Amino acid sequence: MKIYPVIMCGGSGTRLWPVSTSRTPKQFVNLVSDTSLFSQTVTRLAPGSDGLDLAEPIIISNARYLDLIETQLDAAGISPLAILLEPCARNTAAVAALAAEFVGRIDPDGLVLLLPSDHFIGDPAAFRTAITEAIAVADAGRIVAFGIAPDRPETGFGYIKAGEQIGQSAYIVAAFREKPNHITALSYLSEGNYSWNAGIFLFPADLMQAELMTHAPDVLSGAKIALDLTVANGPVHQIDETSFSGIRSISIDYAVMEHTKNAAVVGPVSCAWSDVGTWPAVGDLQTSSGPVQPVLIDTENCTIHSEQGTLIAALGVEDLVIAVHDDTVLVMSKSRAQDVSLVIEALKVRGLTDKF
Amino acid sequence: MKIYPVIMCGGSGTRLWPVSTSRTPKQFVNLVSDTSLFSQTVTRLAPGSDGLDLAEPIIISNARYLDLIETQLDAAGISPLAILLEPCARNTAAVAALAAEFVGRIDPDGLVLLLPSDHFIGDPAAFRTAITEAIAVADAGRIVAFGIAPDRPETGFGYIKAGEQIGQSAYIVAAFREKPNHITALSYLSEGNYSWNAGIFLFPADLMQAELMTHAPDVLSGAKIALDLTVANGPVHQIDETSFSGIRSISIDYAVMEHTKNAAVVGPVSCAWSDVGTWPAVGDLQTSSGPVQPVLIDTENCTIHSEQGTLIAALGVEDLVIAVHDDTVLVMSKSRAQDVSLVIEALKVRGLTDKF
Repeated sequence: MKIYPVIMCGGSGTRLWPVSTSRTPKQFVNLVSDTSLFSQTVTRLAPGSDGLDLAEPIIISNARYLDLIETQLDAAGISPLAILLEPCARNTAAVAALAAEFVGRIDPDGLVLLLPSDHFIGDPAAFRTAITEAIAVADAGRIVAFGIAPDRPETGFGYIKAGEQIGQSAYIVAAFREKPNHITALSYLSEGNYSWNAGIFLFPADLMQAELMTHAPDVLSGAKIALDLTVANGPVHQIDETSFSGIRSISIDYAVMEHTKNAAVVGPVSCAWSDVGTWPAVGDLQTSSGPVQPVLIDTENCTIHSEQGTLIAALGVEDLVIAVHDDTVLVMSKSRAQDVSLVIEALKVRGLTDKF
Repeated sequence: MKIYPVIMCGGSGTRLWPVSTSRTPKQFVNLVSDTSLFSQTVTRLAPGSDGLDLAEPIIISNARYLDLIETQLDAAGISPLAILLEPCARNTAAVAALAAEFVGRIDPDGLVLLLPSDHFIGDPAAFRTAITEAIAVADAGRIVAFGIAPDRPETGFGYIKAGEQIGQSAYIVAAFREKPNHITALSYLSEGNYSWNAGIFLFPADLMQAELMTHAPDVLSGAKIALDLTVANGPVHQIDETSFSGIRSISIDYAVMEHTKNAAVVGPVSCAWSDVGTWPAVGDLQTSSGPVQPVLIDTENCTIHSEQGTLIAALGVEDLVIAVHDDTVLVMSKSRAQDVSLVIEALKVRGLTDKF
């Protein structure tokens, strides 16, 4: 059987503004190295010497990012199997339904590897080993989640509780847990059988179709109709707007994973994973601050991002984020990294919509 | 008798980097309003309804700033009497000698008003009133310094101690004092007869020539020869390089003012004066942070400078300087405002000479 990577790259957030904007969101920006997270994601899944042989990727994104996708795939030397363009965002259950339907129509026995494109994985080999183990589990009739080994009591992620062991690193899922408070997160860490839910799933296309039919039939039927009405031009598929926009917006976790009896987890995977969710997280991964090294004098614990031709100098400061993009400069206390949206709100009030 | 303003605008420092650079130093930049300090200086001396009637200004600067000078004079609607271009910097005694010689050759009875172009004066009327009083004192055979009313125990300026009163706000100078330490500065403030030395002087051209002949004859003769060999093209005079560069580099304070028996001081003048010496000083005077108002969220006591098209956002920070110029960004603790030269040193080491 074949495994079809389906890469989600339609989202855009505010926490990495001004570098990540709605025109060029985080996954398409060279944030932590000289390639984008999207480019790293597709490259990570290419055929390698470890025997893992995945199909060419299926890209699901928003129509407005087609140019970025084509340019970056081309630069990475990757030919996509298909590019599915959503007319609007409808959360991950709709994406999983599209993915299961699209793959099921090509290959009824196919497996789908559904994954975000805006995460960083520092140890791709470890991640690919986890995929190999997950393939066996999924092929036996499971929806497999990838559990990331937690290294801190993070309150920003969901957790997966592992139950009965069914493989070397594979377990029946005992429970999915929403983002915990700090005390609860500490207890998960000490209990030891919890991992972070990275939002990466591997499943047989027909199993996901069946689970959606049981737990979210409206989402499945909406996705079917939207695909039926899709207009294809080579690998690029424009998903029908009227039918797709009517689909209920719900995450795959809420719609299926928390209800199915067929959930498994592979992990905890130690692959140096990061969701690159905030500027300090970018700083933790940076090997370079940009094309021009900043001048740092008596400066401690700062995350600095610049772009071609821009020089940043910092003198006598600490615990700051300094990020420059085009003609926009953000200077922020690291402790406020979750609050960048306040800046976006202020820009909206001023009507500066070209700035975010 | 006529009074000839001689405006010194050849200097360049590092403390207002990256906005002030050797190519476009502080006096030519729109730092605290939408005109430059140089432009404000020449405009402040133009004929007004208060009866103060000064000659057209004589500009003394470095040859590399001729374009800036001509452009900004033109925009201010000011025709210069002359523009004297120094081939290199030789401190203020050489400038005073040039000024006295140049004016003495035009008008042996002329008075010279020698003043820097990179200071801010918030109350020009008060300053012009002080000039009027100083004219009477200078005309009676004095070199008149302008004493600024001190409002804090500043350790960055020299002080003038007032002696015997010789006019409404005019005194014989009892002593010039170099930059004091904090304790000494406090004592000057409490004694009450000290004012800041703003580096502004009014004197008869022939008196300065005589004083230089007594106290620094080498500087005077060097300036005479340099002027003799100067090449004029309309109002622009290129001062001879070989002779001028051989002049001893010494300040007018050391060369003449601390020795002459004919020093007077007018003041203390309360004209909202600032030497605009550091970024926090710029912040104290700013009416605007630049053409695009910054987005400031939970941000306290920051000095922010941006330029056309640049947006600065600050979130959760305090006591910072954030200054953007072209493709260069400085983020600095206000407490380190005297140490910008450390950044320049680092840029020199890297060979980034186009950045300062």
